[in-house]
Amino acid sequence: MSLWEQLDDRPVPAWFDDAKFGIFIHWGPYSVPSWAPRRESVNVSGEAYAEWYGSAMRQEGSPYRDFHLRTYGARTTYEDFAPRFRAELFEPQRWAELFRRSGARYVVLTAKHHDAFCLWPSRYAWNWNSADIGAGRDLFGELAAAVRGQGLRMGAYYSLLEWFNPLYLSDPEAYATERMIPQMKELIDAYRPSVLFTDGEWEHASEKWHSEEFLHWLFAHPDVGGEIVVNDRWGSETRGRHGGIFTTEYGEVGFGPDGQELHMSRERKWEENRGIGASFGYNRHETLDAYMTEKDVIHLLVDTVSRGGNLLLNVGPTADGLIPVIMEERLAQLGDWLQVNGEAIYGTGCWKARSDADEDVRYTVRGETVYAIFLRWPASETTLTAPGLSGKTRARMLGLDEPLTCGQTVEGLSVEVPVLPPERLPCRHAYVIRFD
Amino acid sequence: MSLWEQLDDRPVPAWFDDAKFGIFIHWGPYSVPSWAPRRESVNVSGEAYAEWYGSAMRQEGSPYRDFHLRTYGARTTYEDFAPRFRAELFEPQRWAELFRRSGARYVVLTAKHHDAFCLWPSRYAWNWNSADIGAGRDLFGELAAAVRGQGLRMGAYYSLLEWFNPLYLSDPEAYATERMIPQMKELIDAYRPSVLFTDGEWEHASEKWHSEEFLHWLFAHPDVGGEIVVNDRWGSETRGRHGGIFTTEYGEVGFGPDGQELHMSRERKWEENRGIGASFGYNRHETLDAYMTEKDVIHLLVDTVSRGGNLLLNVGPTADGLIPVIMEERLAQLGDWLQVNGEAIYGTGCWKARSDADEDVRYTVRGETVYAIFLRWPASETTLTAPGLSGKTRARMLGLDEPLTCGQTVEGLSVEVPVLPPERLPCRHAYVIRFD
Amino acid sequence: MSLWEQLDDRPVPAWFDDAKFGIFIHWGPYSVPSWAPRRESVNVSGEAYAEWYGSAMRQEGSPYRDFHLRTYGARTTYEDFAPRFRAELFEPQRWAELFRRSGARYVVLTAKHHDAFCLWPSRYAWNWNSADIGAGRDLFGELAAAVRGQGLRMGAYYSLLEWFNPLYLSDPEAYATERMIPQMKELIDAYRPSVLFTDGEWEHASEKWHSEEFLHWLFAHPDVGGEIVVNDRWGSETRGRHGGIFTTEYGEVGFGPDGQELHMSRERKWEENRGIGASFGYNRHETLDAYMTEKDVIHLLVDTVSRGGNLLLNVGPTADGLIPVIMEERLAQLGDWLQVNGEAIYGTGCWKARSDADEDVRYTVRGETVYAIFLRWPASETTLTAPGLSGKTRARMLGLDEPLTCGQTVEGLSVEVPVLPPERLPCRHAYVIRFD
Amino acid sequence: MSLWEQLDDRPVPAWFDDAKFGIFIHWGPYSVPSWAPRRESVNVSGEAYAEWYGSAMRQEGSPYRDFHLRTYGARTTYEDFAPRFRAELFEPQRWAELFRRSGARYVVLTAKHHDAFCLWPSRYAWNWNSADIGAGRDLFGELAAAVRGQGLRMGAYYSLLEWFNPLYLSDPEAYATERMIPQMKELIDAYRPSVLFTDGEWEHASEKWHSEEFLHWLFAHPDVGGEIVVNDRWGSETRGRHGGIFTTEYGEVGFGPDGQELHMSRERKWEENRGIGASFGYNRHETLDAYMTEKDVIHLLVDTVSRGGNLLLNVGPTADGLIPVIMEERLAQLGDWLQVNGEAIYGTGCWKARSDADEDVRYTVRGETVYAIFLRWPASETTLTAPGLSGKTRARMLGLDEPLTCGQTVEGLSVEVPVLPPERLPCRHAYVIRFD
Repeated sequence: MSLWEQLDDRPVPAWFDDAKFGIFIHWGPYSVPSWAPRRESVNVSGEAYAEWYGSAMRQEGSPYRDFHLRTYGARTTYEDFAPRFRAELFEPQRWAELFRRSGARYVVLTAKHHDAFCLWPSRYAWNWNSADIGAGRDLFGELAAAVRGQGLRMGAYYSLLEWFNPLYLSDPEAYATERMIPQMKELIDAYRPSVLFTDGEWEHASEKWHSEEFLHWLFAHPDVGGEIVVNDRWGSETRGRHGGIFTTEYGEVGFGPDGQELHMSRERKWEENRGIGASFGYNRHETLDAYMTEKDVIHLLVDTVSRGGNLLLNVGPTADGLIPVIMEERLAQLGDWLQVNGEAIYGTGCWKARSDADEDVRYTVRGETVYAIFLRWPASETTLTAPGLSGKTRARMLGLDEPLTCGQTVEGLSVEVPVLPPERLPCRHAYVIRFD
Repeated sequence: MSLWEQLDDRPVPAWFDDAKFGIFIHWGPYSVPSWAPRRESVNVSGEAYAEWYGSAMRQEGSPYRDFHLRTYGARTTYEDFAPRFRAELFEPQRWAELFRRSGARYVVLTAKHHDAFCLWPSRYAWNWNSADIGAGRDLFGELAAAVRGQGLRMGAYYSLLEWFNPLYLSDPEAYATERMIPQMKELIDAYRPSVLFTDGEWEHASEKWHSEEFLHWLFAHPDVGGEIVVNDRWGSETRGRHGGIFTTEYGEVGFGPDGQELHMSRERKWEENRGIGASFGYNRHETLDAYMTEKDVIHLLVDTVSRGGNLLLNVGPTADGLIPVIMEERLAQLGDWLQVNGEAIYGTGCWKARSDADEDVRYTVRGETVYAIFLRWPASETTLTAPGLSGKTRARMLGLDEPLTCGQTVEGLSVEVPVLPPERLPCRHAYVIRFD
Repeated sequence: MSLWEQLDDRPVPAWFDDAKFGIFIHWGPYSVPSWAPRRESVNVSGEAYAEWYGSAMRQEGSPYRDFHLRTYGARTTYEDFAPRFRAELFEPQRWAELFRRSGARYVVLTAKHHDAFCLWPSRYAWNWNSADIGAGRDLFGELAAAVRGQGLRMGAYYSLLEWFNPLYLSDPEAYATERMIPQMKELIDAYRPSVLFTDGEWEHASEKWHSEEFLHWLFAHPDVGGEIVVNDRWGSETRGRHGGIFTTEYGEVGFGPDGQELHMSRERKWEENRGIGASFGYNRHETLDAYMTEKDVIHLLVDTVSRGGNLLLNVGPTADGLIPVIMEERLAQLGDWLQVNGEAIYGTGCWKARSDADEDVRYTVRGETVYAIFLRWPASETTLTAPGLSGKTRARMLGLDEPLTCGQTVEGLSVEVPVLPPERLPCRHAYVIRFD
Repeated sequence: MSLWEQLDDRPVPAWFDDAKFGIFIHWGPYSVPSWAPRRESVNVSGEAYAEWYGSAMRQEGSPYRDFHLRTYGARTTYEDFAPRFRAELFEPQRWAELFRRSGARYVVLTAKHHDAFCLWPSRYAWNWNSADIGAGRDLFGELAAAVRGQGLRMGAYYSLLEWFNPLYLSDPEAYATERMIPQMKELIDAYRPSVLFTDGEWEHASEKWHSEEFLHWLFAHPDVGGEIVVNDRWGSETRGRHGGIFTTEYGEVGFGPDGQELHMSRERKWEENRGIGASFGYNRHETLDAYMTEKDVIHLLVDTVSRGGNLLLNVGPTADGLIPVIMEERLAQLGDWLQVNGEAIYGTGCWKARSDADEDVRYTVRGETVYAIFLRWPASETTLTAPGLSGKTRARMLGLDEPLTCGQTVEGLSVEVPVLPPERLPCRHAYVIRFD
């Protein structure tokens, strides 16, 4: 049995499948220019990521480069943004309270992105981390403490590749063994994260990254080995194939080094990650049209969970340490919805039927209880055709006191749903009928 | 007849009473620190205005001063913010489109605030205006052109007092005649604004400001004399008493130089001005709790108009020239509501009954048509007791096709309103029944 | 008798003719870029003045503009330099001690140059002076106090024109009466300078500047009227013709508005002003070749005084408030020379013979005493042919104890001068024989 | 024979002993604040080094820290100076021409000082070198090319210790083997310097630094092994004892780790290094009194060479890339002196007599020729008592055409020296009589 086969057999820690919803945070020197070309639609993945500024600004003819020269001039380098990444209004306690209020159960912060800038005082990134330059603070450590204080789990995003590190560019394997793996170990030992979300794996096979060795070390770690969740980004050949959970990004699995679209090779726990807007790093250039609506985020969560996934929803703070209010609002709206309907989400599994003849229904299940989640208000006389629902079932809408009348018909299970004036609706945009 | 009596007799131009809803914009060097103490509640007026930063940072013990020293250090002056007020992402066309989409009919920009910084290249403010420092642009002129291109009217806010101008401080009357009045004339001649929203009048009586003379000149102006709307802020004795329209701010009329609360002395067209959040100038420190909800802004507009006022709703752009997305969202939400219900707002008058036994109803009128605006969904069998509604009236809810059944009862006019599922509601938070 | 004829008749205050040597200081926002094209030779007047940066950087194709775009980028304006003009290491006491040590008897600081930036808190230049921006200090006032504390007189340079002031550009006469003259009066009243060195007069005739009226006011001023020295820069027609002392700059009188070289029209006290290097404002780009040598400055002083002039030698401090050490050295070297030879300079007059058959001799006179100043060490047997020296005269070299032997010959007065080893020379580069 | 004994036996390359005079350059991020406490006297070694700013600013109560907080504020770190170290006016060709004009034969630039900032694009100092931040240039490489183009040799200063590197602080031996030695090899391979001036050796013994191994590698290097000169700063026990040449600094050998003053243990080629002023890194705060005079630098060179040493005279450029003009002047003055007297310096040896009864005489020798260098103009009838000079000797003063008359007396060798007027002196401050 190969090493990957052994690793692949490790079960995903149970807490993760139960959690369903986490917050992703992209924050770094790119939050200073905080710019990407504006995209009008949120449903198109592509080249509008503000966290790629440091790379894109170096490419002749890219809109990032035009913007950079026009706004900052040729004498300003990407490195010059680091001292301006000050986080002077960062209050980790407030962030953590907001995340709890949103209903998220875990948080993943970019400990290091492709620019190699660290949000913790890594000895392997001297003078290129938030404690040595700019903020003068251990941003990762401060947030981890606050997040755990609110009862949430803390995770770390870590980019294997480093765009500009001459050691990486000239000798990637030396880089992997002398810097990357020691630094990941430093991070694990210092903060014991519950998630390690690696990325930037596509430039080399896992063998060159020495990923398998590292994972062995990690899973045997006395403090984090049992709890930690890892993903499938460990080498150019692993995405959708090996590792821990599988990952999708704006709904896509991604592409392999040969440019071919990747597909998940088998049943595996997966996680969708995307921004509330069109970028992960804050793009101050984005207007309302680029942001998901309240309805969008609720439906995205419901649909993802009904298909067995977790949602890792990204916020992009500003360089001074604030979460843009439009993002705060979306998180609060999700939190309000989960306040009523959380039992249909947390700790549930996929039901045998994921949708119904009615395309606006999604199902989850916990034990004997089935949750039908309607993506619009159900018709007064709604008939569900999914197998396994029967007339003996009691039905209730979450957030309403009175049980619903239901009965078996030839078409399926018929439920009577009242029409309510807007002020009496239990929540907005998606409504859950619980069948016991 | 005294000069003020003459001036008071000038009727308010008709376009203004018809317009009902305008956008106020506070933008200047204070948008660089863009900070005020955080206020949790939006309903408390007080000391949380970011546009007062320049004055407050000079006061020993003020939270602004503490913030300033901590964040920028003692060597940074307020004047140092001017070169950093760059507006590098300002696209006036986008702003204007957003304002049109919001349903606003006019826009008022701070041409000059108490810090005396001008957003146009005033020859009286050399090296202290946006064309000479920082942005290098005629911000007022650019926005005026874009706003008019969208069919809206453009207005100017202008502060009579200047906090730090040594000429004003040592000889206010020389200041008024040598700088202030020539500068206001320069502004009028250059941009022909439809509104002149003066402020900062409270430190001296109108005689010292030479307000009456200026207004005579203004009303006789061949280009703007007929159209321009002025307010009641022309001297320490004029607010709520003399001038054009009366003004309220966060619902209050304000206080006279003796500290006594002012009251409107007689019937007069009035305008409420306030921020979507707790500050006029952008306060990046504010979180969601400080912002009005969608419901708040809709109800505020309805209530204001039903009482004869206009709403001048303020947005605070960032120093780089963007309107925070949460503000954009509120404007879009108001615009969506007005798209359906605008006929109950624009060009209407106060009806004899402003509310009803049902406290959640407001009335407006246009010709023979009366609009009852419900601040929640009406009961299925709603009875309106306001005099003047009779059974002969035809009733219809704006946004719905079918007429409503109504009939006279002993209690009043009875209307039958259906209950609708949320996806079929014509709009949100306030619903208009039109009686013909 | 015309007004100018009256003014021209005013005698130059006696202190000025006695003083002979003053320090000129050019300091302002231009000291931040502190750059002009490099000139290898100090003897060419021309376009290498760092204090003209603000104007020259706006001219397409000028080397200043190229430098500016390359170094600061198009988004940096001249106005942006003002907040960086911080003077954080300025110690006026040290400057004043250095000036005293140099042997200077007066100091003239640029209170306002063509950029209109004031080094004192002028109420007519609000937000465009050193007290409001950048340094946050009354630089003129602080230096005036220190200079007077060392027993020297303080003077002010003041530019009539203002390159960019829109009021000046559109209506120069309104500017003159509303801003310029009130501001000069403010300066006089606040600091009672002993010298008012005007400049920038060439764009308009004195009538438009209202110069004559101002001079009448000035000469009648109870505090400064008797002592103050003015120059000939009061209008396009006055240089070398009207006013107080006449001025030369790098040896030239200058050019009239018609481009014709000006000549002094009659006998008048005059003053040469020039930098130690090729620029007035500090040009950090200048290398040693651009600076006068110790010999150059000593000979320049001697030659100027022997021809009836004063020398106003310019230093250009850095933006942080330091005098470049090479300038400090030249001043100290002049001071060392004057320590020995000052009696041949201060309080002297021109002698009937200004030079001799020996071209390296200059003369000054005080009462019965004649000073022959040799620009190199005199020959052992030196014969002076200037009339008025006779054998009865006693001769002594300043700095040496023993009298020199002299006697009448047919060629003239013969003096025997010993040869001395370098360590015993009384001074360097110029040697004075005093004849009684 | 121990390793050090082997290394100690390596002869100093001949070019170095012949060269006598080199230029030392301290340049780095410390050139931005370029500040140290002012010292009035140049003859006191001590705590006034501007290049120590980065360390000293961190010490409570140090004058550096007071200055830093007052001038830059607590939010500005030392790291923040790196982007401001722009070298925008640096013209290596001009520097190299000046160094040649000064008569120097080699140049040593701080490739890396204690702050670890590299002036070349070292892959071991990613984002902490002049190519990645600020200047964006390979400063070391550019200067090396220009210096060699002028026929001078190029050397590198390299600090073993790194004040703030966490790897160094936690595990100095790992640092030495993983970073320091690889980096030194990178430097040698890339630029083939003729001098490697190490420093910062005192915190650990040479064994921990692995110095001996590195030196073995170095001396066996095919390109530089024969030519390169190293010094005695290779470990806490080596200064004045082991390595290549011995070093003195402001005349002192230095102190060992036990605080005891070091002494040279035996005859060895040595080199004095010191600033023209009191600091190595540019201290803009220094005034004329802190700089050596023309006489000081000439006498220092003469005295050093006469005692068998080389002089490595330091200049401190500004952050924008200029050599302060006072330093340029001193170098030019030395160059003028060497133009006349160079043959008494270059390629000479110590003579058996280093001085004479006359304390103002120093001797050098080349083959049969002895040079007596007088630190003042010799008396007309000078008698030299040093053994080995005899009446058969011909005597000539360098720079004068006519031979001097000399003869043997009982006291010694008597030489007749004429007295010359200052304009005819061959040079200044020191005068050479050559005896053949």
